[in-house]
Amino acid sequence: MKFPFRTIALIGKRQSDAIAEPLLRLAAFLSEQRIAVVVDQETAALLGAHPYQAMALEEMGGVVDLGIVLGGDGTMLNIACTLAKSGVPLVGVNQGRLGFLTDISVETMQQTIADMLAGQFVTEQRMMLSARIVRGETEICSGLALNEVVMHRDSVSSMIEFEVRINGEYLYTQRADGLIVATPTGSTAYALSSGGPILHPGLELIELVPVSPHTLSNRPIVVDSASVIDIKMLGRHASGVRVRFDSHAHFDLEIGDRLEVMRYAARLYLLHPQGHSYYHMLREKLLWNKTL
Amino acid sequence: MKFPFRTIALIGKRQSDAIAEPLLRLAAFLSEQRIAVVVDQETAALLGAHPYQAMALEEMGGVVDLGIVLGGDGTMLNIACTLAKSGVPLVGVNQGRLGFLTDISVETMQQTIADMLAGQFVTEQRMMLSARIVRGETEICSGLALNEVVMHRDSVSSMIEFEVRINGEYLYTQRADGLIVATPTGSTAYALSSGGPILHPGLELIELVPVSPHTLSNRPIVVDSASVIDIKMLGRHASGVRVRFDSHAHFDLEIGDRLEVMRYAARLYLLHPQGHSYYHMLREKLLWNKTL
Amino acid sequence: MKFPFRTIALIGKRQSDAIAEPLLRLAAFLSEQRIAVVVDQETAALLGAHPYQAMALEEMGGVVDLGIVLGGDGTMLNIACTLAKSGVPLVGVNQGRLGFLTDISVETMQQTIADMLAGQFVTEQRMMLSARIVRGETEICSGLALNEVVMHRDSVSSMIEFEVRINGEYLYTQRADGLIVATPTGSTAYALSSGGPILHPGLELIELVPVSPHTLSNRPIVVDSASVIDIKMLGRHASGVRVRFDSHAHFDLEIGDRLEVMRYAARLYLLHPQGHSYYHMLREKLLWNKTL
Amino acid sequence: MKFPFRTIALIGKRQSDAIAEPLLRLAAFLSEQRIAVVVDQETAALLGAHPYQAMALEEMGGVVDLGIVLGGDGTMLNIACTLAKSGVPLVGVNQGRLGFLTDISVETMQQTIADMLAGQFVTEQRMMLSARIVRGETEICSGLALNEVVMHRDSVSSMIEFEVRINGEYLYTQRADGLIVATPTGSTAYALSSGGPILHPGLELIELVPVSPHTLSNRPIVVDSASVIDIKMLGRHASGVRVRFDSHAHFDLEIGDRLEVMRYAARLYLLHPQGHSYYHMLREKLLWNKTL
Repeated sequence: MKFPFRTIALIGKRQSDAIAEPLLRLAAFLSEQRIAVVVDQETAALLGAHPYQAMALEEMGGVVDLGIVLGGDGTMLNIACTLAKSGVPLVGVNQGRLGFLTDISVETMQQTIADMLAGQFVTEQRMMLSARIVRGETEICSGLALNEVVMHRDSVSSMIEFEVRINGEYLYTQRADGLIVATPTGSTAYALSSGGPILHPGLELIELVPVSPHTLSNRPIVVDSASVIDIKMLGRHASGVRVRFDSHAHFDLEIGDRLEVMRYAARLYLLHPQGHSYYHMLREKLLWNKTL
Repeated sequence: MKFPFRTIALIGKRQSDAIAEPLLRLAAFLSEQRIAVVVDQETAALLGAHPYQAMALEEMGGVVDLGIVLGGDGTMLNIACTLAKSGVPLVGVNQGRLGFLTDISVETMQQTIADMLAGQFVTEQRMMLSARIVRGETEICSGLALNEVVMHRDSVSSMIEFEVRINGEYLYTQRADGLIVATPTGSTAYALSSGGPILHPGLELIELVPVSPHTLSNRPIVVDSASVIDIKMLGRHASGVRVRFDSHAHFDLEIGDRLEVMRYAARLYLLHPQGHSYYHMLREKLLWNKTL
Repeated sequence: MKFPFRTIALIGKRQSDAIAEPLLRLAAFLSEQRIAVVVDQETAALLGAHPYQAMALEEMGGVVDLGIVLGGDGTMLNIACTLAKSGVPLVGVNQGRLGFLTDISVETMQQTIADMLAGQFVTEQRMMLSARIVRGETEICSGLALNEVVMHRDSVSSMIEFEVRINGEYLYTQRADGLIVATPTGSTAYALSSGGPILHPGLELIELVPVSPHTLSNRPIVVDSASVIDIKMLGRHASGVRVRFDSHAHFDLEIGDRLEVMRYAARLYLLHPQGHSYYHMLREKLLWNKTL
Repeated sequence: MKFPFRTIALIGKRQSDAIAEPLLRLAAFLSEQRIAVVVDQETAALLGAHPYQAMALEEMGGVVDLGIVLGGDGTMLNIACTLAKSGVPLVGVNQGRLGFLTDISVETMQQTIADMLAGQFVTEQRMMLSARIVRGETEICSGLALNEVVMHRDSVSSMIEFEVRINGEYLYTQRADGLIVATPTGSTAYALSSGGPILHPGLELIELVPVSPHTLSNRPIVVDSASVIDIKMLGRHASGVRVRFDSHAHFDLEIGDRLEVMRYAARLYLLHPQGHSYYHMLREKLLWNKTL
């Protein structure tokens, strides 16, 4: 990570007009601080006329020192994998209710970002997942995920059946709606709704959370982040099983296909304002502070 | 229910050749007892040459005194709604592991059925659900279910959002993978995998079980069987939400569609051998007897 | 239930001085309406000098037309069983956060009570449990509960082992921290914290909810309210198992003791202001309205 | 760990006569192999006349190269903390159903132990917890645990209220029956019954699992093993709260007492026969193999 930040990319929520005003306001502020501003290419198309250079996410590595995302956690998820590859650290600004990944309010962003430019920030590293789908001996698809890789039945199919191995060792054969393979970052997302534990986001771990498992004693399992998770589709279901990488990509499986999930080599760097507290965020998001 | 049983219909697992031999064996046995045997039309097509009358399920009402199903719980679910309409009581014979609905083993069926023909049986009534989908003011689909009516997202869509009313009174707005509206019979099926309680099958109740709900305090709710459950699709998801009636029918929803679920007027009559114990079945199926 | 209410009993939170002022204010208001006011004997001792007749809860049957409880749900639980026996209907006024049973705020009580005296109320019936402990052939203890009867290990003992029968039929042998036998009213109390479903309070049902069961497939079970639940202590634990009736009474069990729980013959009559909504209360208490 | 093992201690289930025969048989076998046998002092008292040296667990460090425990997981838990301090590795032999920690059957122990003496074994390290109770500024109690440290209400008290800090940072204030602070080894014990995830036993993590929490969104949390967990008793409960270290020690808390839990400096060394599979054990213990 290069500090001080001399070139900053602004990335807005996809297909959202509402982001234009605060994004341009933030761009103007950064320019005043003599920081070079580039705007994500997809976002730029939503902004009307503006003086900033448009740049594809894929080209930002080596050029951009920091990315500021304006949107919600969904926007962050959409772009995190691409930027993590290039090592660009990210900051999240939220227009609505604060998210786990986008913890700066648009109302106070100018002051907060100013403080962060002056070095008042904390850096978090988040592990990510790399997954590939293998048919026969051939890799037919691959992808990254910050939250989770999910194998799930389509709504027209009945429970799916699959076999899981960890580092080649047989774990179980299971019938369920699906299986979530999540990072600690993803442990407060879909995995939590499906009964998984909260894993502190600084940990490097992989959790397997079954969705509506047929066997009631199938519980979430947490393993070493160096584990290779191998999931093989069984059964007679010729169609109707999909793999999802966060929410940004899907792929249809066939019987006998294998889904292989492991830790991705690079980490995502997330910057937070000084004083950021993960536990405070948890209390707010899970309403723990409302009931005593 | 007319007793003694003078005309009995035999109904086999769909698309299964394996059922032919035991079904014909049972048919021959019944004929020897001077009972008129009819064979479900779809099943008949799988049997080769045989002397029995084929009959559509829909025509059995008023003609058939008892239906014997050879297959598993899935087969029973497939045909229960049609036969429940006509008041034909059912008995379930299972080729594999005993099911909740098909509790007579194919190995011992001859003696067990003989005893039942002699009046050695217990009768259970099971409530069912009737559901319809309303678009604007128009009913565009309707169906019955013995286990459950499920509204569920497609695997390509994200969480769905819906509003639930009970007897017109607002219950909640919820985001989740789906919502299960189940009978007591269905409480040991999909609803159980999704965290619902076990409801004794003799009860008349409706349970609402959310699947992977976003709000962690959304728990299963059990209401009076006279309740009308009204579920309205909200949100921006133009596609990807489906309604499922047991496992035999599906329907795609659009935004603003309403799913209305209530108790069906008729009940399913299930006959069991004398000495049948629901709690024994629970212990066997949930492996409670294996651990102490 | 006798209406209009000519004699009203006021019952305050036990050992609470804070209740004196609002209770005397309410008493004065009722007297102005020409209603005879009596004060629960235990409460009276906390009030200082006052002109109202003190009366034991046990003597109120046939004399008092309505009881108004000032306190929280705990206060209501403490006195409900005694007053349910005599058929006196109850209203709950709460000083703090509204409860499931005490749903009138002390701030607005005067107007609300005035409306209720004019007939603007709805009446709910709540089923209760009657339990007795049998040692050998002898009943050694009995009690009532509005929420639940709980058998639980002491914190020094390890898991307890017990055998459950329903109407004499064997259900299971289980090891757990304890077993909750709850009414629909109790389904939103301790049973909910231990994984039980929400049962609409107008239903007549009994639910069995295991606390931290050793066998992971042991799930909450809901049975007919006419069921007799029979729980027999097994094992080598010479001490450390207790039965609790709501929160107001405890009893120590010995090995071989049986706990027998069934529906109590009488119901509790709870009055609510017109417009009372159970589902609204659920949304408030479980924070369902805070997250979308 | 010193290998080959020249001096082996045999430790039997406490207060169990049944252990004498297999223990003496194993002792004779080891003697034949020219291994020095010592017997745990408490166990020795149960054996009748025998030629082996009795030794207190506390004196075995530096003398004994290996401890063989004959009993169940409970026996292992009872003695693990004492022997972990001295670095003596342990092997578990089970008379009944195999346990997570005692995975060698008494029927096959002679051959299995012979193989292990020849070097055919795998070594596992298990982290442990160290806890102390602080009243005011004074430490009034301390202890070790291999599975878990639990703070739990007594059965006569109602829910307890406590405040949790992790590394000094505020996590939450919670009301519950109790709080389990567990190791990965303990994740398949009491924590699993209370809804916690399965943590692979090779991991170094601490999990916090609430028991019957009042706030339904309070879920198990997994944190770094270097974390210091600080739990402070709140509320008005003058009595009835206890801390338990595995199952071998208890301590009563007072209001304001703090329970501090952290990783213990030493690890327990567990030896398994070659080919030992944790996942196989999980499948057996949780009956995953019985249902497909």
